[in-house]
Amino acid sequence: MQTDRPVVYLALLHYPVYNKEREVVATAVTNLDLHDLARLAVTYGCRGFFVVTPLKLQTRLVERLLDHWRTGRGGEFNPSRKQAFLSTRVVATLDDAVAAVAGENGRVPRIVATTARTVAGAKSYAELRELMRSESGPWLVVFGTGWGLDDGFLEEVPEVVLEPIPGMDEYNHLSVRSATAIVLDRLLAPDRERR
Amino acid sequence: MQTDRPVVYLALLHYPVYNKEREVVATAVTNLDLHDLARLAVTYGCRGFFVVTPLKLQTRLVERLLDHWRTGRGGEFNPSRKQAFLSTRVVATLDDAVAAVAGENGRVPRIVATTARTVAGAKSYAELRELMRSESGPWLVVFGTGWGLDDGFLEEVPEVVLEPIPGMDEYNHLSVRSATAIVLDRLLAPDRERR
Repeated sequence: MQTDRPVVYLALLHYPVYNKEREVVATAVTNLDLHDLARLAVTYGCRGFFVVTPLKLQTRLVERLLDHWRTGRGGEFNPSRKQAFLSTRVVATLDDAVAAVAGENGRVPRIVATTARTVAGAKSYAELRELMRSESGPWLVVFGTGWGLDDGFLEEVPEVVLEPIPGMDEYNHLSVRSATAIVLDRLLAPDRERR
Repeated sequence: MQTDRPVVYLALLHYPVYNKEREVVATAVTNLDLHDLARLAVTYGCRGFFVVTPLKLQTRLVERLLDHWRTGRGGEFNPSRKQAFLSTRVVATLDDAVAAVAGENGRVPRIVATTARTVAGAKSYAELRELMRSESGPWLVVFGTGWGLDDGFLEEVPEVVLEPIPGMDEYNHLSVRSATAIVLDRLLAPDRERR
């Protein structure tokens, strides 16, 4: 099925990701990650944004933030932020996100993962862009916090792993906020924008 | 002069920008803006990143942050962050940034401004990308904090104003962190990355 506009969801994983010592951990949620990714998701027409954390306290923190912007004073102060957070959800695991997407679309999403590391068989942006235009999805594009997604996760879970965004002089240390912005623009910006 | 890699500097302006009530103000510096833009500048091969604020207290705050990462414990903890901040400077006005670029390159930079608003005569990304490859620069690409750069500034100062990044459904509220990531990628990513 040809789709001009693929059905895409975002997920920001706080587990299983590496810390600086390359131990697999659950990271704390960063407030501005949520703001930036929620706004990016709406800008690029994504159907939803999942904040994925197994930590109960972090879940409650995210729920308070979402309440503030969706039903509380935040939304009165800044309606565009309210709009951004309307499609944001917090879930405990990526399976929960997959189940939610499946419930909304009648089929499970194809999972795309991003990494700053070189992975065998990784697809280029152009390849995935093309694929997203020719295959109906839904697609669930996954970003890791901390020092990036666990290698075991990358090997087992995603159907597609995207190539890293290489720096010009071997510098390869973007924030997840920057990486998400660049990846969504490369995959989803209208063709007229890319000329 | 044909240059494969244009000479580009970034500037993040905290004045003159709008607040939510469309008053022209000097905004406070946001810590993560500096981290994200410094990392983006190095990733995309920019020669320098200027944090522009007229406020003395904010200047001291930025200097403390830079010291922490460049010569203090931050750089030991995270050498890649130290590297990112090595090319970051804080200055009081855009003229100071222009003077610094002129000092390093023997000529004043051509100023490019970004805005989320529609401005007559704005250039597309492809046009500026082409221009940057055919004209030697140096270029100074300016981003505004708050609710964006003052209209008077946009009319008078930059030689080039870039088209906004339009959302898919009229949503046009990206963070300056996201906008900078997308603009640098569109202007400076190697052609092989864009295929």
